[in-house]
Amino acid sequence: MARVVVGMTMSLDGFINDREGSVAALYPDFATLRDSQPMRESIQNTGAVVMGWKTFAMANDPDWYVGNYEYQVPIFVLTRAMPERHPREGGLSFTFVTDGLRSAVAQARAAAGGKDITVVGGARTIQQCIRDGLADEINIDVMPVLLGGGLRLFDNLGADPPQLEREVALELPGGRTHLRFRVVR
Amino acid sequence: MARVVVGMTMSLDGFINDREGSVAALYPDFATLRDSQPMRESIQNTGAVVMGWKTFAMANDPDWYVGNYEYQVPIFVLTRAMPERHPREGGLSFTFVTDGLRSAVAQARAAAGGKDITVVGGARTIQQCIRDGLADEINIDVMPVLLGGGLRLFDNLGADPPQLEREVALELPGGRTHLRFRVVR
Repeated sequence: MARVVVGMTMSLDGFINDREGSVAALYPDFATLRDSQPMRESIQNTGAVVMGWKTFAMANDPDWYVGNYEYQVPIFVLTRAMPERHPREGGLSFTFVTDGLRSAVAQARAAAGGKDITVVGGARTIQQCIRDGLADEINIDVMPVLLGGGLRLFDNLGADPPQLEREVALELPGGRTHLRFRVVR
Repeated sequence: MARVVVGMTMSLDGFINDREGSVAALYPDFATLRDSQPMRESIQNTGAVVMGWKTFAMANDPDWYVGNYEYQVPIFVLTRAMPERHPREGGLSFTFVTDGLRSAVAQARAAAGGKDITVVGGARTIQQCIRDGLADEINIDVMPVLLGGGLRLFDNLGADPPQLEREVALELPGGRTHLRFRVVR
């Protein structure tokens, strides 16, 4: 059964960007990150990706995804309105989903060919995945940084967040620590 | 040189107690925790302990410290006023410090005989240690729990929190993950 895997990188104090919205302090290892063992496994296991609009738009040039994105799989982007500029579709298919997260995850599941659905952010999308019981696994990379402010990953989780089981804690290069949790149902 | 080591247990979403102030969900392994490798090392390396008043008072019976506390070393308790009930002093010495954290750490350093000063909480005491540049090492245990609310460990860190280096990430029994960071100066 395909799993819904949500994951992001956060500072030790729980932020996914700093007060100015920059993620630079969390990705000093950007150039080599995709060669790490958890990322290679994730790329191998992922059949479709779900992301929020802002996460999608962080690449200044939408075409970036076609050539450079780690996950060369069907991508489902949550949005309120269709964007003016689509990426050119190489081997990738882009679907802009306007009827909410649950629909995006269902469409991604249908496209994933039995592989995992990976939700790459942003924070609000991941929070909603956890709150709505959609997430099966939570992957958190902790960077050895205190940002002191910014956007919190774990916020707005509702009154009764799920129980977790730690699956693994891994020291990665560059001070990055990979934590993987299974959501208990 | 003795180090000032600050440390607490937090939920994955960064809380040290739940909305009702309970720490129960973070210590299902309370009975065996002191036998874990990081705790045994900490007990061995610690020459004096600093704690906030609320952390001290969490033991309903102050005498609890004399017989049961992990750290059988001189203890410095931050307080605004002298408490009515002192613990009976077995092998322990208790000092109630009314002139602030920096004074408590200095007194603890003098009492620690060259060993580490361990700051065991609470959150505000640890925040102040980080903010005021007193902390040399940050030990965080992450439990596989989302509390969704409560008291945040990493908050109020000021405009310019220090850089960190990860020293170790360790999987402990019971889903506990031990993360150790060095404060870079």
